[in-house]
Amino acid sequence: MTDQTDRPSGAATPITISVDAMGSDLGPTAIVAGIAKSVQKNPSVRFLVFGRESEIRPLIDKRRLGARVEVRDAPDVVRMDDKPSHVMRNGKSTSMWAAVDAVKSGEAQAVVSCGNTGALMAVSMLRLRKLPGIDRPAIACLWPSRNPGGFNVMLDVGADVRADAKDLLQYARMGGSYARNGLGVSRPRVGLLNVGTEENKGRPEMKEAHDLITAAADEAKIDFVGFVEGGDIPSNRVDVIVTDGFTGNVALKTGEGTARLIRDLLRDAFRATPLSRIAALLAVTSLGRLSKRIDPRRVNGGVFLGLNGTVVKSHGSADATGVSAAIKLAFQLAESRFTERLAARVASGDTDGQDAATETARAAADEQAR
Amino acid sequence: MTDQTDRPSGAATPITISVDAMGSDLGPTAIVAGIAKSVQKNPSVRFLVFGRESEIRPLIDKRRLGARVEVRDAPDVVRMDDKPSHVMRNGKSTSMWAAVDAVKSGEAQAVVSCGNTGALMAVSMLRLRKLPGIDRPAIACLWPSRNPGGFNVMLDVGADVRADAKDLLQYARMGGSYARNGLGVSRPRVGLLNVGTEENKGRPEMKEAHDLITAAADEAKIDFVGFVEGGDIPSNRVDVIVTDGFTGNVALKTGEGTARLIRDLLRDAFRATPLSRIAALLAVTSLGRLSKRIDPRRVNGGVFLGLNGTVVKSHGSADATGVSAAIKLAFQLAESRFTERLAARVASGDTDGQDAATETARAAADEQAR
Repeated sequence: MTDQTDRPSGAATPITISVDAMGSDLGPTAIVAGIAKSVQKNPSVRFLVFGRESEIRPLIDKRRLGARVEVRDAPDVVRMDDKPSHVMRNGKSTSMWAAVDAVKSGEAQAVVSCGNTGALMAVSMLRLRKLPGIDRPAIACLWPSRNPGGFNVMLDVGADVRADAKDLLQYARMGGSYARNGLGVSRPRVGLLNVGTEENKGRPEMKEAHDLITAAADEAKIDFVGFVEGGDIPSNRVDVIVTDGFTGNVALKTGEGTARLIRDLLRDAFRATPLSRIAALLAVTSLGRLSKRIDPRRVNGGVFLGLNGTVVKSHGSADATGVSAAIKLAFQLAESRFTERLAARVASGDTDGQDAATETARAAADEQAR
Repeated sequence: MTDQTDRPSGAATPITISVDAMGSDLGPTAIVAGIAKSVQKNPSVRFLVFGRESEIRPLIDKRRLGARVEVRDAPDVVRMDDKPSHVMRNGKSTSMWAAVDAVKSGEAQAVVSCGNTGALMAVSMLRLRKLPGIDRPAIACLWPSRNPGGFNVMLDVGADVRADAKDLLQYARMGGSYARNGLGVSRPRVGLLNVGTEENKGRPEMKEAHDLITAAADEAKIDFVGFVEGGDIPSNRVDVIVTDGFTGNVALKTGEGTARLIRDLLRDAFRATPLSRIAALLAVTSLGRLSKRIDPRRVNGGVFLGLNGTVVKSHGSADATGVSAAIKLAFQLAESRFTERLAARVASGDTDGQDAATETARAAADEQAR
């Protein structure tokens, strides 16, 4: 499964994903259903599940997941409206905190939570610490695109509402490394999101970031394509889109909202007339493939970049399909030892072998694209 | 067609649209083709067309548009990479300048240009001047949504990359007035675009704008729904989405790019197998309706709000369908005397009768939604 020689664990060793079972809008039921889906599809995955044992245990037992899932009791829950600072001070007994700590201790190779994004970032920064050389961690998401691999990476999509030119440069480096290791793109094309592609457009910090990334591109082993626009996000012009967390979050949710609207309109169109209902039957396979391709649930999962440990944030409203997609992403990143590779790259600035595209990563990207 | 008593011109009086024929990426051919489409559909529209007469005259003659179109020679062209400040100093002999001046002089009731957005805004501000009480004009666009009317309004989508809390309040007022007069929504729901709907989220100026709009909502005759997210843009939660020009521009282009990607994937899906090709034939009417609904060309046209005159910016790459859509929007706004109504509202703060939804505006919105 892998041809890496510097990998002591080997692909056969099971990977353990730590899961915060309490953060979901839909409750632990959706989380456990997602775990069940993943258990069924992937024989190499194990789980440490944190939350109220009295609620979770019956769900695990009902689905007979006991052999692959260990439940650990955590009495408290981080709520969606808890302030991050409050959780940092008082969150020690929450399922989120315990789930992150399992990565810190090495018991798990990655953590998945559907909970409060701000709190998850705060707890992750506190417990896992930032990588040396990183000022602001970022959240990266995958975006369906016209790329050969079917996906682009965009960051930041919500870790921090502001980013200065230096932060944007770090995002370019981290995003480049993610595209190499997570998507198997050997020399990622990186674009800086702006309003227009001319160099004199946009906010002043954009011009400064443009200059910084241009200067660092060779050393970071990326192709900097300059400014890109919102319309380029799903295009084959770039592999990585760099932006601040405010703009990135709005763009991500706008894209998802648009896709959802079109899916609904499409469904309505096929119910409109008897002929169109027959058409829907005839085209069921092709439409199913399309529907899967543009289903936001299947690219669920924002990856926190810049920490000593892999953290995947799932949508709060993710159902079983969404949770399972986030788990798959966490598994793939753990398997490719992405965090270690990113750390090596950020620390040394230029460590070719540590950060090369591998067959594993390529296979993972192919798999994700399916 | 209208039951307004305060309208001296009457619906029978033709409306003249001034057109900058030189700004398009596709050249004057696309512009004249768009004019031809509009001439065919709308018997009440006349045109003043500005540009190089030697290029435009043959196109007009070939399509026999002479009776409805007057061509005026303008020797110079604003290029896409011209800086706005350069055009303001040296642009007097350009087609863009002359086209805007036709609105200033009252010869035309609205102007349409496909040219350089920054230059068009600069020339429009210089020649038409801002409405009293407006600090920053904004560009508003229509967005396909789940609303009963089928469209939301978003502003600013690119007039200015920054907006402070006071600007956002003005956008809320202007957007509310646009929704009332352009879409016929009697009490528009206005949302402020942010990353999350909780009050403690986002940038500091968002909280301040939230407070300002809350305080002004009643007087502005809007329902302020608070913060909305990118996913709400195409929703039925709001009629007007308020944001700064940087975020709005990225969101607009992201939405368009996503819609275009899905259209292409859908086309591919229907070509995938013989069965799906038959399905496409059976569903051709329903799919055509859907395709039209999500075609970015059909909502082409950003309206400049806050000026003494109606200016519609069309996409630089708009084809005949796109240009014709921008002309239709300009015509509808001219017919509903939108600028006069907005001016009255901004000036007085509370002028009920001047700003009420009319049958004309409602009909226009229905028409646009088709």
